Amino acid sequence: MGLGFYMPTRVIMDEECVKRNKAAFAVGRKALIVTGKSSAKENGALADVVEVLGRNGASYAVFDKVMTNPTVECAYEGAEAAMEEEADFIVAIGGGSPMDAAKAIALLAVNDIEKKDLLAGRTGTTALPMIHIPTTAGTGSEVTPYSVLTNHEKQTKTSISAPCLFPSYALLDPKYLRSLSEKTTVNTAIDSLSHSVEGMMSARSNVMADVIAREAIRIISGLFPKLAHGGLDDGDRAKLLYASMLGGTVISQTKTTAVHAMGYSLTYFKNIDHGRANGLLLGEFTEYTEKFAPDRIKDILSCMGMSETEEFKNVLSSILGEKESFAVEELDMYADIASQAGGTKNSFHCPERDEILEIYKKSLL
Amino acid sequence: MGLGFYMPTRVIMDEECVKRNKAAFAVGRKALIVTGKSSAKENGALADVVEVLGRNGASYAVFDKVMTNPTVECAYEGAEAAMEEEADFIVAIGGGSPMDAAKAIALLAVNDIEKKDLLAGRTGTTALPMIHIPTTAGTGSEVTPYSVLTNHEKQTKTSISAPCLFPSYALLDPKYLRSLSEKTTVNTAIDSLSHSVEGMMSARSNVMADVIAREAIRIISGLFPKLAHGGLDDGDRAKLLYASMLGGTVISQTKTTAVHAMGYSLTYFKNIDHGRANGLLLGEFTEYTEKFAPDRIKDILSCMGMSETEEFKNVLSSILGEKESFAVEELDMYADIASQAGGTKNSFHCPERDEILEIYKKSLL
Repeated sequence: MGLGFYMPTRVIMDEECVKRNKAAFAVGRKALIVTGKSSAKENGALADVVEVLGRNGASYAVFDKVMTNPTVECAYEGAEAAMEEEADFIVAIGGGSPMDAAKAIALLAVNDIEKKDLLAGRTGTTALPMIHIPTTAGTGSEVTPYSVLTNHEKQTKTSISAPCLFPSYALLDPKYLRSLSEKTTVNTAIDSLSHSVEGMMSARSNVMADVIAREAIRIISGLFPKLAHGGLDDGDRAKLLYASMLGGTVISQTKTTAVHAMGYSLTYFKNIDHGRANGLLLGEFTEYTEKFAPDRIKDILSCMGMSETEEFKNVLSSILGEKESFAVEELDMYADIASQAGGTKNSFHCPERDEILEIYKKSLL
Repeated sequence: MGLGFYMPTRVIMDEECVKRNKAAFAVGRKALIVTGKSSAKENGALADVVEVLGRNGASYAVFDKVMTNPTVECAYEGAEAAMEEEADFIVAIGGGSPMDAAKAIALLAVNDIEKKDLLAGRTGTTALPMIHIPTTAGTGSEVTPYSVLTNHEKQTKTSISAPCLFPSYALLDPKYLRSLSEKTTVNTAIDSLSHSVEGMMSARSNVMADVIAREAIRIISGLFPKLAHGGLDDGDRAKLLYASMLGGTVISQTKTTAVHAMGYSLTYFKNIDHGRANGLLLGEFTEYTEKFAPDRIKDILSCMGMSETEEFKNVLSSILGEKESFAVEELDMYADIASQAGGTKNSFHCPERDEILEIYKKSLL
């Protein structure tokens, strides 16, 4: 029985936890608040942060230029802003995009790293202290050491990873989820489900990560009917936010697998939402893995009260609705890219290029 | 749904994990190895540490004066040794006693703290980096921010707590458990069970700590027959070591309860092993808590495949064997002490002084 476990972020989940934990923000004198264009203003998170910073006598600047699926260039621009503003800590507000960008910004603000080195994983051991405030329940980025950035040179997303990228604090208040569209709520929930299911299909899975993954899968699958047909309430959103943090904790240990690696092309080339992209592929990859690790898949299915992979695939289809259309040539190109990805090699059973193409075809045609 | 989670120690569990992780020891140039008189020599852990330090070119000094239930004075003596030797990191090898003493030593080596301040919880925010190597499966100290020291002035144990007391690394190799006596194996297993059960009866219990506690309770209870009748093998010892680390992770979040607070007197005045002391009280305290939180106790019992507290009490009795003898006057004095303890107040339902006496009587007379 071997295992590794490391997740040094301090997690606090509670109603009004941003305002109630001003000590968390007392790590510096000036914050760079990293966020997207509008959601942090609409859901109230930005106002809460500004208030608590004010009570601490800290000043701030806002970098709200993080786009969906942020680029490497965006991270450099944010780091430039952090240096210009002489920010000594980072507050990230948003979904995976601002939270991931914020990590790269925190790193680049205190390390002189060239783009090619950054993308090759030569990162550094220090970063500005970070406080992450997730306003979607999907990415789990608030408790991971990963920053996933869009890499136009490779036409995919590249994940950079370093222990210093774990945020100091993750502050989870479900009230920020209320203003999300139903579509975003569903897509992010499926992303989070994918993290925990992939964690159990990862070559790095271990008994402790499994315990956390099972809990997250149980919680999210309990909400499958509402994810498919609507009706999520505040309590459900709190559960999803909790499960998302658990999923992040899982992949902090296990990393993601071929599902994420394959999904990146769907996002890069077809602009399909990240969570949805994973969801479209998750069922078929589960069925593929079942051939090599039937007990593992049985374990995953039993957390959802299911006994057959077919049932899981049907539920995912009912939640995700009509699929986008793809040409075989597109899938062929995606298979080339995914077969080179680190995530693919991190799968419990690593699929060959032709098997990847087959999974794409079964999933999407 | 509110929760807090923080456990920044990097856990590595594997065969030969000490020798295989020399990077963990590369935090300084000279280690103070904190251990007891003999066990680290007998079980091979000291030799492994010395070897890996040698490969890192690090020197070391050994402080092997930690007694069972270490005193505050012992911690100061160890800190003196660390300063004299100019050690810049600590390696703790052993059960709860060396691991807890090592934390106070790591703290006192870099902070000038008077004894009365230390015992009043005025600790500090920095400590020497620590690598903890548990050689029993009970305390979970390798993943907690607590150092429990015998406090003769108060005739009990006092727990000091600070985030800087989390070790940097916990290295878990089940092979070190092989040379433990059956009695120690049983007592420490019961300590670890108590941590997880108490975590679920704590005023600070939360959904995430519960998930971890349930797993630990399931694992340990699966070994109840072997704990009562012998026959533990290497695989079982690995499970116990894993469950012990989980229990430590739980109490890092929840702290312990009246069970530990009450047990300290049994150890202080009657020299009863710490784990056994908890075990002697755990059944009755569970029954007491059941009156106020029946669902919580049902949850705990169901992890053990039980439906009645009586069954749990019987199993504990069969594992712990004949009880020591106590006079009512002794228990009366213990009740005075326990009713003042922080642990008691941390119980899901905090017992009054007379209720504590009643629990003592039911447990021990």
